[in-house]
Amino acid sequence: MLRCRSVTPADDGAQACLITALEALGFTVTQLPFGPPDAPTPNFYARRGEGKPRLCFAGHTDVVPPGQGWAHDPFEAVIQDGMLFGRGIADMKGGLACSVAAVARVLAEGEPKGAISFLVTGDEEGPARYGTKPVIEWLAERGELPDFCLLGEPTNPAFLGETIKIGRRGSMNAQIIVQGVQGHVAYPHRADNPVHRLLAILGEMTGRILDEGNAWFAPSSLQVTSVDVGNTATNVIPAQASAMVNIRFNDCHTGAGLEAWLRDVTLTHAPKADVQVSISGEAFLTEPAEPVECLQSAVEAVTGHRPALDTGGGTSDARFIALHCPVAEFGLVGATMHKTDEHVSLSSLEELTEIYRTFMKRFGL
Amino acid sequence: MLRCRSVTPADDGAQACLITALEALGFTVTQLPFGPPDAPTPNFYARRGEGKPRLCFAGHTDVVPPGQGWAHDPFEAVIQDGMLFGRGIADMKGGLACSVAAVARVLAEGEPKGAISFLVTGDEEGPARYGTKPVIEWLAERGELPDFCLLGEPTNPAFLGETIKIGRRGSMNAQIIVQGVQGHVAYPHRADNPVHRLLAILGEMTGRILDEGNAWFAPSSLQVTSVDVGNTATNVIPAQASAMVNIRFNDCHTGAGLEAWLRDVTLTHAPKADVQVSISGEAFLTEPAEPVECLQSAVEAVTGHRPALDTGGGTSDARFIALHCPVAEFGLVGATMHKTDEHVSLSSLEELTEIYRTFMKRFGL
Repeated sequence: MLRCRSVTPADDGAQACLITALEALGFTVTQLPFGPPDAPTPNFYARRGEGKPRLCFAGHTDVVPPGQGWAHDPFEAVIQDGMLFGRGIADMKGGLACSVAAVARVLAEGEPKGAISFLVTGDEEGPARYGTKPVIEWLAERGELPDFCLLGEPTNPAFLGETIKIGRRGSMNAQIIVQGVQGHVAYPHRADNPVHRLLAILGEMTGRILDEGNAWFAPSSLQVTSVDVGNTATNVIPAQASAMVNIRFNDCHTGAGLEAWLRDVTLTHAPKADVQVSISGEAFLTEPAEPVECLQSAVEAVTGHRPALDTGGGTSDARFIALHCPVAEFGLVGATMHKTDEHVSLSSLEELTEIYRTFMKRFGL
Repeated sequence: MLRCRSVTPADDGAQACLITALEALGFTVTQLPFGPPDAPTPNFYARRGEGKPRLCFAGHTDVVPPGQGWAHDPFEAVIQDGMLFGRGIADMKGGLACSVAAVARVLAEGEPKGAISFLVTGDEEGPARYGTKPVIEWLAERGELPDFCLLGEPTNPAFLGETIKIGRRGSMNAQIIVQGVQGHVAYPHRADNPVHRLLAILGEMTGRILDEGNAWFAPSSLQVTSVDVGNTATNVIPAQASAMVNIRFNDCHTGAGLEAWLRDVTLTHAPKADVQVSISGEAFLTEPAEPVECLQSAVEAVTGHRPALDTGGGTSDARFIALHCPVAEFGLVGATMHKTDEHVSLSSLEELTEIYRTFMKRFGL
């Protein structure tokens, strides 16, 4: 799988590797290509067994471009000094491979009690429009939703066993463009300074404490990342001013609620302003209940480390899954993900396989 | 004089025209070249008579570049349809010529009672560093200051007799550069957003009412003319943010006082910020007393219009004179000054000469 050049949106046979392995283990595979008919996104759903409990392993086979300067060919899967090198080994072909290997070990011990499934997409590193989102909706429509979903993203910053992610903050960007009336700075009453309107808008936005955070989330944060006017004439009131605002928000908020607030504040101070909002993800949280505790104890049993439960960092496909069922994320060490010479240790692949196997048993499979 | 190409800082014989005329009228001329020895600014002081009252006509012989697209050669002094065309005829070779002609008319009626002088510079349209400022200081050192100074700038927006300027607002520019610490927008506690510090600074500055204005001045005005960050990455807190601020201030303030306030507000919110202040002129006012009333009545007697007393508009060399003696400004119609096809009517030249002559008589000369 690591030798397939599945740089998003390409697949290059990566999913076929997984499908072959899963079919050999008795899984029924449904390919689910969503998106434009001439260039659909490769996705598949695989299931084995019936009844409860229902566990789903989720993940993606696409990877980010390798970039330049690798010591080894990024698509040769070179092993050196106990390390496996290759683009996507940490993020997250390694996690997917470990979950398939863990399933094989469980099956070798006898028929499990419930149902095991895989939700795999080839569009997580790209726009993520025709990947996990429509697949999980497809499952929901068919009553196929699992009781718990485990996403094998590389959640550990430095060592295996460090962190389980049980939620993520939401993120949104807004561009605010205020039009004014240009004029000479000596006659401000004949002009309408858009900078002053924008200052009032941004002052009100940055002045609000969005929330105090809660047990699982840090306080939401609004950052003005740019303000641009570009007026070089010191004696001229400019015609336009713009700003970029980013909000990282916890589950006290929804993207729609924050968008409405941004628009309200903006239009109060500048009725003719233009506000463009892009919500890249809603906040979500899987309250730590039995499945998360099973995962935590499995990690501790194998690694000796009790992983912290965390909601930090950027977004992942878990945001789509969380709308339909509980989801947590745990995978390999992500220190080299998206970087040159991405690699993981062979021992971590063995340990992660044992973690997933132990988790499945404790989960009741 | 209009045919001399005295585009600032060039003189091209313009001052010699005036000197020749004034010497013929009995003036004693002192050339006062200030500035770099290899390229001094041409200035002169001319005086005729002793005792009181002492009146000084002030002005400049340099002009702004003609630019393109003139109907007539801008340095040919073409007369067409009762209009005299040429760069600088309104601003302000015409005003200077009228004052010399008015003096000639007064002298033709008999010896005047007091002293008449001329303060002429060739650097008003340029940096104005080695022009009126050192000349008026030179006069002050020698006890030569007049009782009143009349500056022949084109103060009338549309018709002769409209406006006498008895003061000007001050003007200053400030550039504020705030340094922060760059970082990922998801981790604001590890960064220091310079945009937020700048917003606090500018919010406090724009929130202050500088003053309510007074009998002769509109309220002082602070305008933020630009804010610039230039950060195109929506997930990055930038390292630097800058703003440009212009203040047009009346005589409730001094440049130094406002500069201290700008620095204080800035450093309160951003202790390591850089503030660059440039004061292009202090506010000044010549309280309307007898000389201004003489001028006002002379204008009304000749034109039929009672001119308004005004302190609006940009800066002029009157700001240097006002530090030493009362000064008012009255000249031709400025509608075409600094523009293509600068011109005035021949009749306005005759009227302005009569205004200056009438004023001299009423002033007691």
